Amino acid sequence: MPHVLGQNQYGKAETRVVRIYKDTDRHEVKDLNVSVALSGDLSDVHLTGSNANCLPTDTMKNTCYAYAKEYGIDAAEAYGIRLARHFVDDNEPIHRARVRIEEYFWDRIKTPDSRARFIGSDEIGHSFVRRGGEVRTTEITYDGERVQVVSGLKDLVVMNSTNSEFWGYIKDEYTTLREDYDRVLATQVTARWAFGYQGREGEREPNWERSYAQVRKHLLEAFAETYSYSLQQTLFAMGNRVLDNRPEVDEVRLSLPNKHHFLVDFDGFAVDGLKNDREVYFAADRPYGLIEGTVLREGATAVIPVD
Amino acid sequence: MPHVLGQNQYGKAETRVVRIYKDTDRHEVKDLNVSVALSGDLSDVHLTGSNANCLPTDTMKNTCYAYAKEYGIDAAEAYGIRLARHFVDDNEPIHRARVRIEEYFWDRIKTPDSRARFIGSDEIGHSFVRRGGEVRTTEITYDGERVQVVSGLKDLVVMNSTNSEFWGYIKDEYTTLREDYDRVLATQVTARWAFGYQGREGEREPNWERSYAQVRKHLLEAFAETYSYSLQQTLFAMGNRVLDNRPEVDEVRLSLPNKHHFLVDFDGFAVDGLKNDREVYFAADRPYGLIEGTVLREGATAVIPVD
Amino acid sequence: MPHVLGQNQYGKAETRVVRIYKDTDRHEVKDLNVSVALSGDLSDVHLTGSNANCLPTDTMKNTCYAYAKEYGIDAAEAYGIRLARHFVDDNEPIHRARVRIEEYFWDRIKTPDSRARFIGSDEIGHSFVRRGGEVRTTEITYDGERVQVVSGLKDLVVMNSTNSEFWGYIKDEYTTLREDYDRVLATQVTARWAFGYQGREGEREPNWERSYAQVRKHLLEAFAETYSYSLQQTLFAMGNRVLDNRPEVDEVRLSLPNKHHFLVDFDGFAVDGLKNDREVYFAADRPYGLIEGTVLREGATAVIPVD
Amino acid sequence: MPHVLGQNQYGKAETRVVRIYKDTDRHEVKDLNVSVALSGDLSDVHLTGSNANCLPTDTMKNTCYAYAKEYGIDAAEAYGIRLARHFVDDNEPIHRARVRIEEYFWDRIKTPDSRARFIGSDEIGHSFVRRGGEVRTTEITYDGERVQVVSGLKDLVVMNSTNSEFWGYIKDEYTTLREDYDRVLATQVTARWAFGYQGREGEREPNWERSYAQVRKHLLEAFAETYSYSLQQTLFAMGNRVLDNRPEVDEVRLSLPNKHHFLVDFDGFAVDGLKNDREVYFAADRPYGLIEGTVLREGATAVIPVD
Repeated sequence: MPHVLGQNQYGKAETRVVRIYKDTDRHEVKDLNVSVALSGDLSDVHLTGSNANCLPTDTMKNTCYAYAKEYGIDAAEAYGIRLARHFVDDNEPIHRARVRIEEYFWDRIKTPDSRARFIGSDEIGHSFVRRGGEVRTTEITYDGERVQVVSGLKDLVVMNSTNSEFWGYIKDEYTTLREDYDRVLATQVTARWAFGYQGREGEREPNWERSYAQVRKHLLEAFAETYSYSLQQTLFAMGNRVLDNRPEVDEVRLSLPNKHHFLVDFDGFAVDGLKNDREVYFAADRPYGLIEGTVLREGATAVIPVD
Repeated sequence: MPHVLGQNQYGKAETRVVRIYKDTDRHEVKDLNVSVALSGDLSDVHLTGSNANCLPTDTMKNTCYAYAKEYGIDAAEAYGIRLARHFVDDNEPIHRARVRIEEYFWDRIKTPDSRARFIGSDEIGHSFVRRGGEVRTTEITYDGERVQVVSGLKDLVVMNSTNSEFWGYIKDEYTTLREDYDRVLATQVTARWAFGYQGREGEREPNWERSYAQVRKHLLEAFAETYSYSLQQTLFAMGNRVLDNRPEVDEVRLSLPNKHHFLVDFDGFAVDGLKNDREVYFAADRPYGLIEGTVLREGATAVIPVD
Repeated sequence: MPHVLGQNQYGKAETRVVRIYKDTDRHEVKDLNVSVALSGDLSDVHLTGSNANCLPTDTMKNTCYAYAKEYGIDAAEAYGIRLARHFVDDNEPIHRARVRIEEYFWDRIKTPDSRARFIGSDEIGHSFVRRGGEVRTTEITYDGERVQVVSGLKDLVVMNSTNSEFWGYIKDEYTTLREDYDRVLATQVTARWAFGYQGREGEREPNWERSYAQVRKHLLEAFAETYSYSLQQTLFAMGNRVLDNRPEVDEVRLSLPNKHHFLVDFDGFAVDGLKNDREVYFAADRPYGLIEGTVLREGATAVIPVD
Repeated sequence: MPHVLGQNQYGKAETRVVRIYKDTDRHEVKDLNVSVALSGDLSDVHLTGSNANCLPTDTMKNTCYAYAKEYGIDAAEAYGIRLARHFVDDNEPIHRARVRIEEYFWDRIKTPDSRARFIGSDEIGHSFVRRGGEVRTTEITYDGERVQVVSGLKDLVVMNSTNSEFWGYIKDEYTTLREDYDRVLATQVTARWAFGYQGREGEREPNWERSYAQVRKHLLEAFAETYSYSLQQTLFAMGNRVLDNRPEVDEVRLSLPNKHHFLVDFDGFAVDGLKNDREVYFAADRPYGLIEGTVLREGATAVIPVD
């Protein structure tokens, strides 16, 4: 007995596209990891084994590479929008495309030699070191009418070595935690933010590169400047700060694991005068607190999915 | 200017609970990884820094351990339901709890010595080897009225060395894939399935352990027995088979990465008669196809979130 | 000023070779991850940029695939020996080859349908599920004269829920650990064992498949049957047991992380009568004890490298 | 029958020590992952179950934390030397200590607010962002007489987008690789370098922090400036450059995976004029080339272990 086919999608995940611009001796690198998911009129593929409506995932991969050359990669967002539009507009059975991209950053290597070659700079033109730190992300969805862009970052690890307290919470029969008036607050930021941009005819695209740099800056500044009574409070301050400063963004969602730094207890040690003045910490792996939340511009509708 | 606080939740993630039953010399082990997320009346925590409505994540962790002793762990689902009910029913500001659990399986080690100790068995009573293979999962949500249970598994890697074809698909200007009439089909199954059970007064709980074993069996059998023209077709057959056989399940969602096994091309080798008769494959990592879909019982409402 | 070139080697790492035997309807799978490292007369490659003595790593990869067809893969050890001999014997500048292989196990999927097809069995002939659990390893080195084979396993996780104590140790000013007369002992076994076999003309190869199965069995049995006062004691018992039972093995080296299971302390909980009778444990990630050691047959020379 | 106990060692691995200096408003962070391994007179622990000579790994962990306070962490090397000396000099049965440390870097977060607080700087004093990029490593061994320090780094990913060729290599019957006169060269550097310093009475310690920064700089510069005919040649140039510039270093060992960037072939695409002018690459995961080698100062003895 056949049951009902519900939501379904398919695509090519994790196509690693590296685009190098060599127009001058000062090369440029875009390093992306692209995942495509398409949905549409795909019942037959599931039910009868006919692939007549199926664009192979191998072709999606090829298209990612071809577009990197045909249209270039100015910004991951612009590139992803172009891909999403192509999959839907040029394939009749496909009604919706979602393109997710991770971007890895490369910095130039500086050398004395390079100084000679690029006046006013000590960078060498074709040598790069991967930055590490956070990964930039974006997710574009296109349904044949509207584009929705949700950009973000992940793996941005931050720490305040003071200016964090935690007390005044519910106590029940299982509570053993002691109130803390000066703790380390550390987290690994995963952030996503939704743009108001919809890709309508004549609508102007945000400056994706500048927007990213600014959102990142405001997240860091808000984390650093907030005197915190809970990680939730810090989360709200971070989202709020972005909305205050970036009109192109309507919604911010943050996922903040509380990377606990536990004060090491020296009480049992037989060493005269050994005392931990909030200086020595054990950085724990698991379990960890996990704080998640959305901050929205007044009147905006939340579009970023909740886990 | 404060913006609007949207959906938010918080909790303790990845509490590693190991419960050992030692009532007889034949010990039993339950090995869980528990993640709790709560939501409710938490605006103040975000906006004013008051933690009056905040049950600390440390207390959630303690509760996970205490319940493993107070109520035991018959099945991850039953244990998770009890935890979810407690967090909502016993904390007025908390309106919704989600408990996610991973379970790791242990098999008994068999030895000649153990044969002597357990008549009819060659298992030793206190020695175990971790099974590997798939991880069992469950997710319980409780909103003060209804329980929703979505169980599943992940990391179940399967392969058919024949009985898979792929042809008749869309061709466009970027297509280079060749049609294939005998390919290897391999995937790493992530499956989730929703129970009709709602935890109403007097409603009988499914037999969680038996249900899991049977769903797993039907997934494997359907994968093995389906002559496949696409991974989508195999996906639908797997979901369908579970619904056919397990009345307690209303919905199945599968995420099936296509773990490509590419036939190695021997054409360029200067070896007389060397020919690859579909015997030697390169198992690729990235990119990979990713096929996702839901199969529903007629009339059921989909509750398993879509990525 | 050029300095001195010391030890050097190069090769292709992590070639994923899947060999399927389809001679009957009951297919067989060998699933390997092969890493080759060669050394020899390679100074010019480093110093002058001449690649005249350099066999490309791409060719090593191709050879791994070709040999899977030309000679098949009876056992990872036999296949690796053949590869190692080829690289040295057939390339004059290459004086030493090391071939490391990981092997992943697949079990057959059993179905009612398969029962009909394979009399006396309920296994289906072309459908497999990856076993999980341990990975089998081997490392072959060949210097033009002798073969040295070191096989092993990794990721074999085992646990004794009792029969382990730890007390009577050194106490100093930093000691806070309490003596324990009944603890859980768990570890993730990495084992390597060296064969006496040297690949001389006319020397008979061990039965690699049987040897592996038996060594694994003895490691498990010794772990389970040893009443332990330290993980070191268990380590020695495991190595000793293998040497007692497998004459083809001369040396065993074990690396045993102590996967700590800490008894959860219920003392601070305000619950009457709640007591942890060694039933509820926290499975910790880091830090962990790490116990490493070699057990040798009398008169044998240790060949397994120490980390 | 008891066989022979060979090399053995034990210790606490991956103790995560975070030391914060709060002497002024400008806090400092040292973030380490410390692994201790001790060996000595430990036969009884293995053979009889007596722990009389066993310093518990828990005590090693405690000592790592206590020393972070008692002696501070000026540099990972200095801290590790002190720990290694303590374990050997203060525990009669312990004859050798090895301390391995990973160090994670944190940068200060800059904000407008911080500018006001730290004259001449826009850094905030207690807020940090983890740098990402490479991890710094060191390994100290002490046998009661001499100290040996081998420092290093890992996960430093670099790329040259041109100035790399590969041709003139051995061709055999399995060769299909085409010669390349302009390729991308990328690698993930793991480097270790040995210091001449032996910790003798009155011997002056190197400036560990400055030495690290300079070695890293020379590795990057040599990678960027070398026109490469093989990754081996680049490896040698990198090691050579360090020895040329850093007299405190006697030996450099590098492990350089060749992170292949394959030119995408557009030939099969039905797009007029689409041509890949070395601009679009597929960044592959596995398999990868792996080039390893040591460069030594004339007369020095190699001490860095070979894998």
